[in-house]
Amino acid sequence: MPEFDLIDRLERIICLPEGELQSGCRVGIGDDAAVLEIPEGQELVVSTDTLVEGVHFPAGTPAESIGYKALAVNLSDLASMGAKPTCFFLALTLPREDARWLDEFSAGMAGLARQWRVQLAGGDTTTGPLSMTITALGTVNRGRALLRSGARAGDLVVISGAPGVAARALEIIQAGREPAAMQRKALDYPQPRVDLGQSLAGLATSCIDLSDGLAADLVHILDQSGVGAEIELGRLPVHEGLAGLTDQERWRLQLSGGDDYELCFTVPADSTPELNRISDACDIELTPVGTIVQGSGLELKTEDGASYDLASTGYIHFSGGE
Amino acid sequence: MPEFDLIDRLERIICLPEGELQSGCRVGIGDDAAVLEIPEGQELVVSTDTLVEGVHFPAGTPAESIGYKALAVNLSDLASMGAKPTCFFLALTLPREDARWLDEFSAGMAGLARQWRVQLAGGDTTTGPLSMTITALGTVNRGRALLRSGARAGDLVVISGAPGVAARALEIIQAGREPAAMQRKALDYPQPRVDLGQSLAGLATSCIDLSDGLAADLVHILDQSGVGAEIELGRLPVHEGLAGLTDQERWRLQLSGGDDYELCFTVPADSTPELNRISDACDIELTPVGTIVQGSGLELKTEDGASYDLASTGYIHFSGGE
Repeated sequence: MPEFDLIDRLERIICLPEGELQSGCRVGIGDDAAVLEIPEGQELVVSTDTLVEGVHFPAGTPAESIGYKALAVNLSDLASMGAKPTCFFLALTLPREDARWLDEFSAGMAGLARQWRVQLAGGDTTTGPLSMTITALGTVNRGRALLRSGARAGDLVVISGAPGVAARALEIIQAGREPAAMQRKALDYPQPRVDLGQSLAGLATSCIDLSDGLAADLVHILDQSGVGAEIELGRLPVHEGLAGLTDQERWRLQLSGGDDYELCFTVPADSTPELNRISDACDIELTPVGTIVQGSGLELKTEDGASYDLASTGYIHFSGGE
Repeated sequence: MPEFDLIDRLERIICLPEGELQSGCRVGIGDDAAVLEIPEGQELVVSTDTLVEGVHFPAGTPAESIGYKALAVNLSDLASMGAKPTCFFLALTLPREDARWLDEFSAGMAGLARQWRVQLAGGDTTTGPLSMTITALGTVNRGRALLRSGARAGDLVVISGAPGVAARALEIIQAGREPAAMQRKALDYPQPRVDLGQSLAGLATSCIDLSDGLAADLVHILDQSGVGAEIELGRLPVHEGLAGLTDQERWRLQLSGGDDYELCFTVPADSTPELNRISDACDIELTPVGTIVQGSGLELKTEDGASYDLASTGYIHFSGGE
């Protein structure tokens, strides 16, 4: 496969016109490496994620959704750090030349890149089993990145949106049925919370994006902050895509379902006015679902105050190989 | 495969102790993304390269050499930009858990990372066909990056080292024989010219690293600079690993052999004193092999002044899939 034709094709579809660049990408595709300016007073935030066919998405997944999601999961990582995304690098491995597949893949990626004005600044293409690694770069004011390690006892635990639907869609597909369009969209086109993440820089004491499920991901915050948390199951927001399930079925999806890419973060207890303002500005539901406590570990409480044992804090997402 | 164990293992072997960090990696492995400080007055240089088993290296290649080379090719890209490498991100896809393989792979990578004090700042691990993508970051004084586009008529064309040996080793292996240790080393452990690249910033008018062979790579400089070049075949430095070949066999390897990762660059015609100084400082042979001319394209001249037609300006490197 002639590498340069392929890169030209990707560049033509994905790259933004110069006037629309988010930030100083001084040298992009076409040299040995890209050259970027980082504004004074800013720190660089870098995320890398790989998607492999048969592991992160089943064979036959529409190319447009793969292109979208490969970028989305990286923008979600930047969002969880409070960073503003500026550009990304795409390493794409393809089994064969397939112009139609490539155009659809690029279109899916380009739509999201335009939405957040993120530039394709370089990459590599090679032949092999279908997979892609994106490295996304963003900036944040110096010292303001949202880490996993800042949660303090008394903080509220807040989540954006209503998780669990992506995992529900996957379960329906794996049972051989067709999920509702709204469920499928949650799985194939998760919205990285780019504007929310930036709005939280300076307010949130810790933040993580929900890729492996609320329970497992929140535990990373707890471990790195040296605290515990109590989550009230009755406060978990219920997405319409989870209607008709029993409490137990719903909790399992809300707590262990992966691939939602909502943000889970902690804020000081008196932050309700700021939360409301940010919720309005970003047009997204923000729900306090519990409290950070001294100690360690995650405790789940039902509405009558009893402890609930989530059998598995693992995650439910497509996993063909691991 | 438990992702966290794997990352811990990589981190333990590859990461440098904090005191040995090259640059401000403020948050490394263990959060959603890394946070890096870029010194004032510097620009960021970013390179991405993927290696796939069966495409870039044959199955059965020693893990240590794969780990070394995956980082080396990226450091070589940074070197060709005149950048000082600071950190890198590793996206590693492995078919199965194999602690011994992983330790050897990490050891190969760690040796090179230590040599240039480059920090593993993050990454991703996943299950799938063996491949890896490294994204390497470096810095260069603002406006001083070496591009492919600055060569001017009258400039000298200079190469470091003596290319062609990696391709020779590969040909010997593919013929079912065993190359000499010195030939094998050129193929498996190419030296990225990190210090040379930095020394050239401010002197060279253009630069590229030799991954696809001198002829093909120099043509990138010519195309992007809008110039031509004449190369004198009699001036090409001859590596001892190419002894005993006919002129034609040797020229083919020197001009079309890939994987050497030497630098090819252009300097103003009166730069001989600086070249000698840099050659001494970096302990590397620098050989002027031709001249940039007006026009376009690459002309090869034999010692009697005749034009030589290199049948293919393609490249000779391992290519199982493309």
